[in-house]
Amino acid sequence: MSISFAIEARSGSARAARLMTQHGEIKSPFFMPVGTLAAVKGLTPAMLREAGAQIVLANTYHLALRPGEELVKEFGGVADFMGWHGPTLTDSGGFQVYSLADIRKVTDDGVRFRSHIDGAEFYLTPERAVEIQQALGPDMFMALDECPPGGSDHATVATSLKKTHEWAKRCKDAWTNRDSQSLFGIVQGGLHEDLRAESAGFLSELDLPGYAIGGVSVGEPAEEIDRIVQFTAPKLPDAKPRYLMGVGTPQDMLRAIGHGIDMFDCVMPTRHARHAQVFTDHGRVNLRNLKWRQDHGPIEEGCDCYTCRTVSLGYLRHLFVADELMGLVYATIHNIRYYLRLMERARAAILENRYESFRDQLLAQMG
Amino acid sequence: MSISFAIEARSGSARAARLMTQHGEIKSPFFMPVGTLAAVKGLTPAMLREAGAQIVLANTYHLALRPGEELVKEFGGVADFMGWHGPTLTDSGGFQVYSLADIRKVTDDGVRFRSHIDGAEFYLTPERAVEIQQALGPDMFMALDECPPGGSDHATVATSLKKTHEWAKRCKDAWTNRDSQSLFGIVQGGLHEDLRAESAGFLSELDLPGYAIGGVSVGEPAEEIDRIVQFTAPKLPDAKPRYLMGVGTPQDMLRAIGHGIDMFDCVMPTRHARHAQVFTDHGRVNLRNLKWRQDHGPIEEGCDCYTCRTVSLGYLRHLFVADELMGLVYATIHNIRYYLRLMERARAAILENRYESFRDQLLAQMG
Repeated sequence: MSISFAIEARSGSARAARLMTQHGEIKSPFFMPVGTLAAVKGLTPAMLREAGAQIVLANTYHLALRPGEELVKEFGGVADFMGWHGPTLTDSGGFQVYSLADIRKVTDDGVRFRSHIDGAEFYLTPERAVEIQQALGPDMFMALDECPPGGSDHATVATSLKKTHEWAKRCKDAWTNRDSQSLFGIVQGGLHEDLRAESAGFLSELDLPGYAIGGVSVGEPAEEIDRIVQFTAPKLPDAKPRYLMGVGTPQDMLRAIGHGIDMFDCVMPTRHARHAQVFTDHGRVNLRNLKWRQDHGPIEEGCDCYTCRTVSLGYLRHLFVADELMGLVYATIHNIRYYLRLMERARAAILENRYESFRDQLLAQMG
Repeated sequence: MSISFAIEARSGSARAARLMTQHGEIKSPFFMPVGTLAAVKGLTPAMLREAGAQIVLANTYHLALRPGEELVKEFGGVADFMGWHGPTLTDSGGFQVYSLADIRKVTDDGVRFRSHIDGAEFYLTPERAVEIQQALGPDMFMALDECPPGGSDHATVATSLKKTHEWAKRCKDAWTNRDSQSLFGIVQGGLHEDLRAESAGFLSELDLPGYAIGGVSVGEPAEEIDRIVQFTAPKLPDAKPRYLMGVGTPQDMLRAIGHGIDMFDCVMPTRHARHAQVFTDHGRVNLRNLKWRQDHGPIEEGCDCYTCRTVSLGYLRHLFVADELMGLVYATIHNIRYYLRLMERARAAILENRYESFRDQLLAQMG
């Protein structure tokens, strides 16, 4: 198996581990900045490393459409293509097919859809999802699943779950690069605990290198995310990494770590940065706000990011008000570092067995 | 006087010098990346330093409109405001008033205009241009001039020149921060050599710390730029820095250095980068071109910029084709480094008294 996962410390249900990949070691819990098109918007690989990034996530759907996985493979895979050279993970493309593409037909075999870019027709099956991701060359990659709409009823989710499980088996069968790339299964089941339990049980039986919880953060309240994560995480194999897909806010992540989640990804830090929203321990801040006009201080006292070390709130407000591109760059640097530093602080708290008090204090501050 | 200028070596008419400012020493000839709104689009101060930038130019017109010079002053001036802390130069704002604003009236006293952003009315006089620039706090700043349209006839340019000269005197009178900021005069005169000679003579008499040649690169062919620079540069005081404003292509700059120009600024490297155009010793390259699709090489062999050290032409083409923001960032890094490295190579050639052959060889390569 290409990855190894060694738990170093626990604090309640939270875990601190080391995940070894072919491209280097990752300390958990960890956050994966999203590089949709094999680029994290606003940050070069050097800036990602300076921010403390250990791994980058890339989107199979986007890369399969442009420039195509075969081209990425020619360049040595997504990590080398983007000059990152470190660990990477790709999603299966399924989530984007459901959210971006014009779906033509979903059958038991796969999904026929049209590209959101030029309308070209594609056909994604479990075998094809594995084939594309193996070509993209990440250290970890995801089984193709079906993600029913948020709030779907029990019968709908149950039917969908059968497909997700069948597809997971087919992904495992299609997976050939087992010594260099690790397949993760994705637990579905919506907000229904019995289905989540069934899914965790079924996938655990498949004995995959890692597991994700999918189908959360699709519109439901934070309490529901928390309930499902708290219920599902302990049903996954303790010795394998657990990845909560697409989540979320700092608060969501703090709670999920407490339930034993090791891995996160989310577009929030990069997307919010583009809209002048930055994260701090005291909540989100809008950099366009007039009150920063004459503020000489950084976004957050004590933050060690390049932005906070270099420029003031007053300057950042100027950039956003004047629609200057560098506003986005500076805000992204801060937000990515904020997310990564949150993980570093969570890890330190776990190693010192004080995770619960760390989390509760921070959640209280964040309001 | 706040700056000092010491010529170290000559090669023909080309000079290599050291220009001392309150914010540090600059080796000439040098190029000033343009940070219109107190930010170079795509590069943080750390990236500018890595690219070898010694000084940044900021635009008075843009900063006076947003966020206003008084705010910039509160933050310690433009160099500190943008977290650059090194040498800076500002233009007078005149060029942007003529090219961007809605001009209401030009009188002998000044220019009344409306902001291109919100239509607010402003009144720029020589005294006001000095006041704004002194508040912005650059090491070097420019007299307010009038720049007649490219190709204007002798009578028009002669009339305009009287105003430019009168305004230069008024700028000198209004200039109070003489121990920390240096005023540059701007030679005008269009394509008319007698007027250029008159302007160089008049301004030399004013005994200012530095001189610029303005009103070139306003639509005329490269040969005309070259003719005017070759004619005008030797008429400026030998012991003062000479700045060719808004020029230009690598070829334009190589020729101008040969005529004794020390300083350059141009939006070309940043603006062209946004349109996928990058500079090399063999001419300009369009990164969108299909022929780069499978090219694993850098933009330019031997280039030491971060982009060329990190990513391939194939990857850069992918970013531009997919409209990914990082294409612009990578292309800007390369172009800025290309311009700065061209200056470093010119300087090395001057120090070794082989400028002419260096220039001719490079011009032949660039085609």
